[in-house]
Amino acid sequence: MRKGNLMDVRDDIKVLDATIRDGGLCNNFEFTDEFVSNLYKMNVKCGVDYMEFGYRASKKMFKESDFGKWKFCNEADLRAIVGDNPTDLKIAVMADVGRCDYKTDFIPKSESVIDMVRVACYIHQIPAAIEMIEHFHELGYETTCNIMAISQVNTEQILQALKMLSDSHVDVIYLVDSFGSLYPENASELARLYLSTVEGTGKKIGFHAHNNQNLAFANTIETLSYGVSYLDATVQGMGRGAGNCAMELLLGFLKNPKYNFYDLLKFIEKYMIPLKEQGVVWGYDLQYMFTGQLNLHPREAIAFTTEKRKDYSEFYKALLDNV
Amino acid sequence: MRKGNLMDVRDDIKVLDATIRDGGLCNNFEFTDEFVSNLYKMNVKCGVDYMEFGYRASKKMFKESDFGKWKFCNEADLRAIVGDNPTDLKIAVMADVGRCDYKTDFIPKSESVIDMVRVACYIHQIPAAIEMIEHFHELGYETTCNIMAISQVNTEQILQALKMLSDSHVDVIYLVDSFGSLYPENASELARLYLSTVEGTGKKIGFHAHNNQNLAFANTIETLSYGVSYLDATVQGMGRGAGNCAMELLLGFLKNPKYNFYDLLKFIEKYMIPLKEQGVVWGYDLQYMFTGQLNLHPREAIAFTTEKRKDYSEFYKALLDNV
Repeated sequence: MRKGNLMDVRDDIKVLDATIRDGGLCNNFEFTDEFVSNLYKMNVKCGVDYMEFGYRASKKMFKESDFGKWKFCNEADLRAIVGDNPTDLKIAVMADVGRCDYKTDFIPKSESVIDMVRVACYIHQIPAAIEMIEHFHELGYETTCNIMAISQVNTEQILQALKMLSDSHVDVIYLVDSFGSLYPENASELARLYLSTVEGTGKKIGFHAHNNQNLAFANTIETLSYGVSYLDATVQGMGRGAGNCAMELLLGFLKNPKYNFYDLLKFIEKYMIPLKEQGVVWGYDLQYMFTGQLNLHPREAIAFTTEKRKDYSEFYKALLDNV
Repeated sequence: MRKGNLMDVRDDIKVLDATIRDGGLCNNFEFTDEFVSNLYKMNVKCGVDYMEFGYRASKKMFKESDFGKWKFCNEADLRAIVGDNPTDLKIAVMADVGRCDYKTDFIPKSESVIDMVRVACYIHQIPAAIEMIEHFHELGYETTCNIMAISQVNTEQILQALKMLSDSHVDVIYLVDSFGSLYPENASELARLYLSTVEGTGKKIGFHAHNNQNLAFANTIETLSYGVSYLDATVQGMGRGAGNCAMELLLGFLKNPKYNFYDLLKFIEKYMIPLKEQGVVWGYDLQYMFTGQLNLHPREAIAFTTEKRKDYSEFYKALLDNV
């Protein structure tokens, strides 16, 4: 059963801008403060609901000097951009299972400008993710669980994970098509499984797309049509490899008049075009289509891109050995 | 009701390569013979069912010296590429209502290397299209009727057109999203209307997508899932403005082992990359997203592209006056 129709406003929809976080994987999180500050202001003006600033990665595992500041999202760095964030836009950061010192690196929500912590994990890390989620919940944060690489997980495991999460305090469970290998029919089938399994718990379902087969936007609006309500997007789809669902496509689709993209266009002109001119690369290309079609991690395709290779047929042949 | 599933082979599927015809709108049909000849050979190897070579445009209306030869598809030019076409690949040309001297410019199928004539029209030209279709049918050709700009036509008119075509000898009726403004939900609703209206007549339904909202591939596989069986695609989506459904995405999706894209990759390396380097431009970009979202003809967006403008926000504001 579809929820609403193409003319409706769906008040349950929340749009999350992940440009700095997923886009940061393209430029080592080295955005200027001016870029991040203007992205923040733009998101406020465009009616975006959440802005994810980056990761809060372990400083024991990762040297601060090796990355831009949004790999760590220090409280002071966030406040330098948003002050006390006197807006309707909520602030999110991502915490990876196994790459975050969550017990020591988070202060209570009452003292923090962060609203939501998104816990990213693989299916076998669900118990660790739930431990983190409960910790963040006790500190007062909204939480999500983003189960990655879902296209390589069998249905039994997904069901078990959803049941475990249903018993936790998590607010939103994300379906994450890390490899961009889902077709709209797969994505909507999974979305309906997530929605029906958590029915009655009050938990929301989110979708995070990758554009390997040029389906990031299509899969996003397909899953939303069945009741998925937390939608990730990035400006011009900026994100690892083939990138994500483009914010401008999503805002242009949504019927709620609170969303608009005029300021997003100004932002693209002023900040995204120069970024591309500097050589930061992302977006749909054949090498990502291959890994999406073959349901593989995009790492080889990213290397192919970095090396500026154009021998697609040789690359494809080599890739077939990985399946 | 969906027809088949993501694992099935659908024997009714026919893939049509429209690279020269729709792509020709990007370079004035000025492809080298080497390009066209290798595209033909590649289509044969990849299992493509039809190859559309271009238009057969009126030489009274258009001067031959103003265009590449595929605007006219002279029999001799076709034969120079395909000989007697001793392959399973069928040859198509397009004839536009009002821009084709169809009564004088077509010889009987028994003497021609052409297999199929595709008649393109707007909704108000259906009577003229049917006259042409009957003529081509009598000459012995397979025929299609490609009703363009369908996103601006009301349902009553569509129903009437489908009933008129049901009484004709047309073989395939194409749903054409000229403006790239359909979402998968719209496209599949229209496809089901087409399919149910012609049910029992033996006529097939086709889909021709444009990629203004990055939905060309998504809409193609969505309509096919409901029973659409003639699918247009072009190499790397080459086509007017935002382009079409990419052949490599479609061949990678289809499960029939007769389709494969290895030779397509070699073709891209050898012929498409140089074409792009020569400055031939097509594909998804913001200006096309705007016209798709607003359900407008892409002509202003094409002009914006040709002028190499990047002032998206100003362009968008001006475009709102056209709605």
